[in-house]
Amino acid sequence: MATNNQVRFAAVGVAALALAFTVIPAQASSQRTLPTISRAADGPVDEFGGARRIGGDQSKTIQAAIQKSGAKNVILVIGDGMGDSEITVARNYLEGAGGAFKGIDALPLTGQMTHYSVHKENGKPDYTPDSAATGSAWATGVKTYDNAISVDRHGRPHETLLQLAKKSGKATGDITTSEIQDATPAVQVSHVLLRKCYGPEETSKSCAPNALENGGLGSISEQLLNTRPDVTFGGGSKTFAEKAKAGDWKGQTLEAQAKARGYQYITDKADLATIGSADQRRPVLGLFSSGNMPVRYAETLATSGGGDKAAVQCQANPKASEVPTLASMTKKSIDLLSKNADGRKNGFFLQVESASIDKKDHAADACGQIGETAQLDEAVQEALKFAKKDKNTLVIVTADHAHSSQIVDEVTPGLSIKLRTNEGSDMVVSYGTAAAGESQQHTGSQVRVAGYGPGAANVVGLIDQTDLFFIIRDGMRAYRR
Amino acid sequence: MATNNQVRFAAVGVAALALAFTVIPAQASSQRTLPTISRAADGPVDEFGGARRIGGDQSKTIQAAIQKSGAKNVILVIGDGMGDSEITVARNYLEGAGGAFKGIDALPLTGQMTHYSVHKENGKPDYTPDSAATGSAWATGVKTYDNAISVDRHGRPHETLLQLAKKSGKATGDITTSEIQDATPAVQVSHVLLRKCYGPEETSKSCAPNALENGGLGSISEQLLNTRPDVTFGGGSKTFAEKAKAGDWKGQTLEAQAKARGYQYITDKADLATIGSADQRRPVLGLFSSGNMPVRYAETLATSGGGDKAAVQCQANPKASEVPTLASMTKKSIDLLSKNADGRKNGFFLQVESASIDKKDHAADACGQIGETAQLDEAVQEALKFAKKDKNTLVIVTADHAHSSQIVDEVTPGLSIKLRTNEGSDMVVSYGTAAAGESQQHTGSQVRVAGYGPGAANVVGLIDQTDLFFIIRDGMRAYRR
Repeated sequence: MATNNQVRFAAVGVAALALAFTVIPAQASSQRTLPTISRAADGPVDEFGGARRIGGDQSKTIQAAIQKSGAKNVILVIGDGMGDSEITVARNYLEGAGGAFKGIDALPLTGQMTHYSVHKENGKPDYTPDSAATGSAWATGVKTYDNAISVDRHGRPHETLLQLAKKSGKATGDITTSEIQDATPAVQVSHVLLRKCYGPEETSKSCAPNALENGGLGSISEQLLNTRPDVTFGGGSKTFAEKAKAGDWKGQTLEAQAKARGYQYITDKADLATIGSADQRRPVLGLFSSGNMPVRYAETLATSGGGDKAAVQCQANPKASEVPTLASMTKKSIDLLSKNADGRKNGFFLQVESASIDKKDHAADACGQIGETAQLDEAVQEALKFAKKDKNTLVIVTADHAHSSQIVDEVTPGLSIKLRTNEGSDMVVSYGTAAAGESQQHTGSQVRVAGYGPGAANVVGLIDQTDLFFIIRDGMRAYRR
Repeated sequence: MATNNQVRFAAVGVAALALAFTVIPAQASSQRTLPTISRAADGPVDEFGGARRIGGDQSKTIQAAIQKSGAKNVILVIGDGMGDSEITVARNYLEGAGGAFKGIDALPLTGQMTHYSVHKENGKPDYTPDSAATGSAWATGVKTYDNAISVDRHGRPHETLLQLAKKSGKATGDITTSEIQDATPAVQVSHVLLRKCYGPEETSKSCAPNALENGGLGSISEQLLNTRPDVTFGGGSKTFAEKAKAGDWKGQTLEAQAKARGYQYITDKADLATIGSADQRRPVLGLFSSGNMPVRYAETLATSGGGDKAAVQCQANPKASEVPTLASMTKKSIDLLSKNADGRKNGFFLQVESASIDKKDHAADACGQIGETAQLDEAVQEALKFAKKDKNTLVIVTADHAHSSQIVDEVTPGLSIKLRTNEGSDMVVSYGTAAAGESQQHTGSQVRVAGYGPGAANVVGLIDQTDLFFIIRDGMRAYRR
């Protein structure tokens, strides 16, 4: 068994093998391929050694995975609400308890991350944050109140990683499976007092100081157009039917504005294949749904007493095929950004979000959250494929916050469901933080963070969400503020 | 802020600084002091950069923390039920959300660990294991069924890390805050079909094939006396009033047997200080409670709707002062084992458990679990203090399984409680996997694993609980089976 494992791991870590009798330079050049790891058990998992994930001392492989900070490209992949429990639910179901994700689990350097927000009134910790405060934390390096989009608790805007990357000459991308105005994508491109200020209408009502007609920066969608990432993919086209209330495009829809300002504005999966370049002259804005994009699996809700009912399996959601997968959007983004179509040779910054792990966890939809975790895993595989070839790309994979779902033995007083996993064993998933029909709550547990590439060792140990800002900013040398 | 951080971290990682312009040998000798990490935020946490835990690129510090496997001494510290959520609950309460534990969070190399068990009947994964199966997994390298103590699912005993360490000439210790016969300590010293077979009485009833009178290995307590660790500390003296039913000590109490077999048998905190040596001629068996040892904080139970009531703070449990702390037992064990009083120069293996994080989580006792996490942290501090001085000790800190407690924003349908943390913010802790008065369930989320010392890099990435067996066995070169 040990021998098998060693062969398996040696095959994965060719670089590590080559280094077996030599020394790892602390300041290695960026020109070697760093190892990923392969951590599935060989099985059978009920036999001596059959469940082990590593074979022999991994010190050299882990050491070989460390390269000093300074990657040219950065891909930050966020699983919204993807706590360790959500990762385990999905791994158990899809890959088996002894299995491993080819993307998520292949990142060689790992740690834990805190993600608390702060109360607006006193700056003290709020132990269970929302996605706006958490996204703002890594986008700007400052913790803020729940619902804030890249403004601090005093309402002051802070420049974002994407904006800094752009200023330092990098190509940029911001992609998600939710509405593009949702908190996680919004934090990279806009600064508003409340996350719900998607378009001019809501902004006038709820974020008046941000409204264009009041001399503000505008709604999230309008600021997105100003920030002008080279690549923007997601849902949320319905807000682009709203009209600007002030400024150069007053009275025109945001869609018309986008087109007038040179955007390649697409709304169809088929259009995605036709895009051959994306740059500041002709950025691409792909909005594939009116609201959030449909998810991979059909709704499979936990219910009161559901853990005692017959086990079910996840079924495809037919609507999912109408939109591009997160992996295909990720691959397309990397293709476009790495081409540096407008001649910029400074690399790129790309944020990728699988948004509906969170949304389906809120809904106590076990299959829903599993399918969106699979989407994230496939996106990570695309990121790693590029990074291994490129040799100068940092990939970081983490969550914005933890969530409700728990794996238990027996039916719980709250909502539960029994799933028959792909390996044929039964798993009860419980949701106990809200009543049936209400939204399950975020939870405050520290979350996993993992990395690959130059600077990835910075995620090892305990970090805070705001550290991501500095790790990425300083790694990209994008100091301009 | 960055400068402050850098100074702070430089001070922590002197070894790392020294290596700043040199190269880390992949096969470094064991004679350097490896760095720990210090990850508390400088604050204020609501200001730009104030919540960050790291300052500048940590690649060299993490690289400097890696040393190839082969430690002379191993200290394995288990927080029973100490999932990432339990760690965060305790950190938020005691140290603040931006704070860091001086023990738990100081370990420089970190990863995630799966801990499923297998069903007895078919060997397929059981996604929510108990402490017997999980302990057996790291003690023996084989996954087994819930309730099994170091026997596989076919009932076959497998030699344990402690037994292998002893055979290879190492001193050994097994300490806990629970009854010494409880699952986690039991897995290192015994092999029984069901965890409840503490003494001769229950073994005759529930584990007949294991009973001495049937030619078995005996109850957990009797096997403990046979395995004869140099140091054994915990609770559980009541079982030692039972009498052996067969063998050389038939008709005598286990206490009398222990004394007759040369054990230094102590039951009082004051006695602990008087013990000057522990070896195979005169091992020490310290049983400081009749059952489980009292916990640090007074019971503070979550209730239905409790999250909406006034916030409370944790209060001392007067009974706790009657017994030694886990840290003092850990320090004493290290002192005794490292003295190698009987002339063995092969180092030692010590397992340390903070048992009642789990027990108090089962009881929905938020302060209870927080206090026992603090106990664990202090024990880790003792382990690290020795390891940094010794330079040849592997310290691994992890949990056996995850548990129920979750940090939420609002009152939940189940049990909840609002705590006013030491930093003066309110935290709602929810328990939703069992009804009031019933035992909250274990949960199946992957858990944090962290390490310090030669071989610690093996915990980075995703490992399985059974990997701990091989990491420790192979690191100690204790192959004899």
